[in-house]
Amino acid sequence: MKDGAKISNAVIKRLPRYRRYLEELKYRDVERISSGELSRLIGYTASQIRQDLNNFGGFGQQGYGYNVEGLFEKISGILGLEREYRIVIVGAGNLGQALANYLHTYRTGFNLVAMFDVKPGVVGQRVNDIEIGDFSGLGPYLESGDIDIGIITVNANAQEVAERLVEGGVGGIWNFAPVDIEVPDSVAIENVHLSDSLHSLIYYINSKRDMRGGDDGTDGADDGADPE
Amino acid sequence: MKDGAKISNAVIKRLPRYRRYLEELKYRDVERISSGELSRLIGYTASQIRQDLNNFGGFGQQGYGYNVEGLFEKISGILGLEREYRIVIVGAGNLGQALANYLHTYRTGFNLVAMFDVKPGVVGQRVNDIEIGDFSGLGPYLESGDIDIGIITVNANAQEVAERLVEGGVGGIWNFAPVDIEVPDSVAIENVHLSDSLHSLIYYINSKRDMRGGDDGTDGADDGADPE
Repeated sequence: MKDGAKISNAVIKRLPRYRRYLEELKYRDVERISSGELSRLIGYTASQIRQDLNNFGGFGQQGYGYNVEGLFEKISGILGLEREYRIVIVGAGNLGQALANYLHTYRTGFNLVAMFDVKPGVVGQRVNDIEIGDFSGLGPYLESGDIDIGIITVNANAQEVAERLVEGGVGGIWNFAPVDIEVPDSVAIENVHLSDSLHSLIYYINSKRDMRGGDDGTDGADDGADPE
Repeated sequence: MKDGAKISNAVIKRLPRYRRYLEELKYRDVERISSGELSRLIGYTASQIRQDLNNFGGFGQQGYGYNVEGLFEKISGILGLEREYRIVIVGAGNLGQALANYLHTYRTGFNLVAMFDVKPGVVGQRVNDIEIGDFSGLGPYLESGDIDIGIITVNANAQEVAERLVEGGVGGIWNFAPVDIEVPDSVAIENVHLSDSLHSLIYYINSKRDMRGGDDGTDGADDGADPE
């Protein structure tokens, strides 16, 4: 990560969002875009955007806007999306299967290679091209394959599953279990806390309900907006 | 929202996370906790925590720490979690069914009352106590019931689904479709962008890979940590 080393963590946190909008602009064959137009799309201020993207150099020119394709490729490179990642999913219930389909349908660069579960009725089923294996096979499987990411979607024993994945040498864990799990510092962890998102939604539903009746046009619930 | 009106948006964004840890402490029968202990759990600095929680008053006393139960109830009240919310899910594939089970299993206060899909093989199936209805029935259903939240898990036409939900009077939308949808200002929207989370994970996997070999103990990937 030659590039990443120079970029602050706060900027890194915003990169996936920039990349997502740039990808959409690419699909719409937009070649250049100004910081003002990007601001209206993404919700960050134009000055924030100019400051963030200055980190990468060479993609914005005064009066010409940003080169969409170049900036997209640069950000993808910084995130590390130029290579393929091998993934296993532990927990093959509805959520595990939904994520398997998601990776299968949308995500080039993410190669789901195995799924595991403990339930007899689930083990042996197929999801796309993958036969769900028994959880006891996870350790031996990890020894034989070079796995980058373990996805955890189990309802119980998430910490134990994480420890097996770490022993098996995964570089990162994408955790959907409703608990925080602990991993060594050398392993990356991203916890998806659906309840946090749902609770934010509830707050904004209530604050907007108070607004209604005389809608004052105040914005505020989307993740990009910050009315303060 | 008498309380919420006085609290900044930045603090509001952190409330679900505070609440989640306080809930865990409650389950463990912890009655009081200091800002330092909370800091170690949550990952925010102790001074940040004191500043945030000062907004609510009366739950922290110098040298005695915070009253876990009282603070939990206060935050729950600010978020609006003291009442029940009626929910419909549009898109009853794996993700829709996973969310239905999630609400059924974990979430008191969230009452899933209907699910809809367009696929003939899916319509008519049952998830827990709910029979999946045909999408054409969504409009009439919304007219007859007082629905607070629409969850969107469709792969296509998410914007159209959102418009039907808004016409039907929902207060907020929890969107899992891989696009941003637009709603009137009076409706709350929370987009869950799984790809942003996955791409952050990839970045941290790569930055930690460079660290490895001589693990320097540097932290940084969890959502609470901010090494900058």
